[in-house]
Amino acid sequence: MKKVAVILSGCGVFDGSEIYESVITLLAIRQQGAQYQCFAPDKNQLQVVNHLTGEVDDTQQRNVLVEAARIARGEIKPVTECNAEDFDALILPGGFGAAKNLCTFAVDGAQSQPDESVLRVCKAFADAGKPAGYACIAPALAASVYGNSTKLTIGNDADTAQGINALGAEHVECAVEDIVVDSQARLVTTPAYMLATDILQAQAGLNKMVETVLAMD
Amino acid sequence: MKKVAVILSGCGVFDGSEIYESVITLLAIRQQGAQYQCFAPDKNQLQVVNHLTGEVDDTQQRNVLVEAARIARGEIKPVTECNAEDFDALILPGGFGAAKNLCTFAVDGAQSQPDESVLRVCKAFADAGKPAGYACIAPALAASVYGNSTKLTIGNDADTAQGINALGAEHVECAVEDIVVDSQARLVTTPAYMLATDILQAQAGLNKMVETVLAMD
Repeated sequence: MKKVAVILSGCGVFDGSEIYESVITLLAIRQQGAQYQCFAPDKNQLQVVNHLTGEVDDTQQRNVLVEAARIARGEIKPVTECNAEDFDALILPGGFGAAKNLCTFAVDGAQSQPDESVLRVCKAFADAGKPAGYACIAPALAASVYGNSTKLTIGNDADTAQGINALGAEHVECAVEDIVVDSQARLVTTPAYMLATDILQAQAGLNKMVETVLAMD
Repeated sequence: MKKVAVILSGCGVFDGSEIYESVITLLAIRQQGAQYQCFAPDKNQLQVVNHLTGEVDDTQQRNVLVEAARIARGEIKPVTECNAEDFDALILPGGFGAAKNLCTFAVDGAQSQPDESVLRVCKAFADAGKPAGYACIAPALAASVYGNSTKLTIGNDADTAQGINALGAEHVECAVEDIVVDSQARLVTTPAYMLATDILQAQAGLNKMVETVLAMD
């Protein structure tokens, strides 16, 4: 049974992991006969966003690992404990947390800096030639991990695509229910909620991403 | 297209809605050709639980509606705005929030008191003969809504079953992948994470619950 490491970035689309994407990804991994272990960085979130109003709540601080534990029912480990050699593949769902907590793309765009502990893990998978899937805005982090004109997608947002290209990757436009595969980098990406207007659309692309990642041997 | 009202109780298994159950339920509703609108009570949670350690965090207060908005990507309304006449069915996923925030079953057991605004909505669906699905521990709330020896399940926990029977319902043991149907009350229940050890098990029962609720005309 293949083992997949999943890196989460909190709990909620506006300041952490997008919850629909995360659960659909975990479900797809199990449906396709593999198993997963969730990880997250043990540090404060960039922000706490009130998901009812969309406003930043400056009175609060929340920890990425502690909040991501809500999605994973407590079954989660610090990302520093993720060893690529123990897994067959890596998957990162999206949500703004991927661009706020796993790297600084949401703030710095083309000058985005990846979180060091997350970068170390993502690089280890890339360097070992192990397949990886990044969804939604998480490919902005993949641009820093892979560079080297690696093909990837966040859908079709021109500004975001420009930032990603400036980081050294090559953005490819993609429909919501589809994926972009860079066979050499063994990287699979899908727009998910960068484009989705419905949970079924997100699922179509995410299922395809998980399936393609798991089919790479 | 059938319309389903979904009542959430926060965001996270230990103090709110169980996230896997919630997303699987919403996904199932869409997969089966219906649409949903999420609701939650606008009040403070009973507790905030650190999902990494399992410990109550007494330093924090969180609002049920604001946290539930994380699951629903902000597309959620106060439960006071839920009119049964606008919907074909009602579904409540589980998580301790259903027994901590929607009623007091987690604290008071057989003396459980439902939240008044939630009870009003649940009763409106029941009184109109509209079908409803309650998963995991949410059937403890259903016991207060339906009473009258209505058949329901939370799986096979003897103490919980006793509390539910004391509230006037009739607990029926049920396997994780199955459902209990009370045709007269038009109530469908499934154990989900009261018994599940895997997301696939929870999905099997939840899919069956949603399918059965939507098939009741």
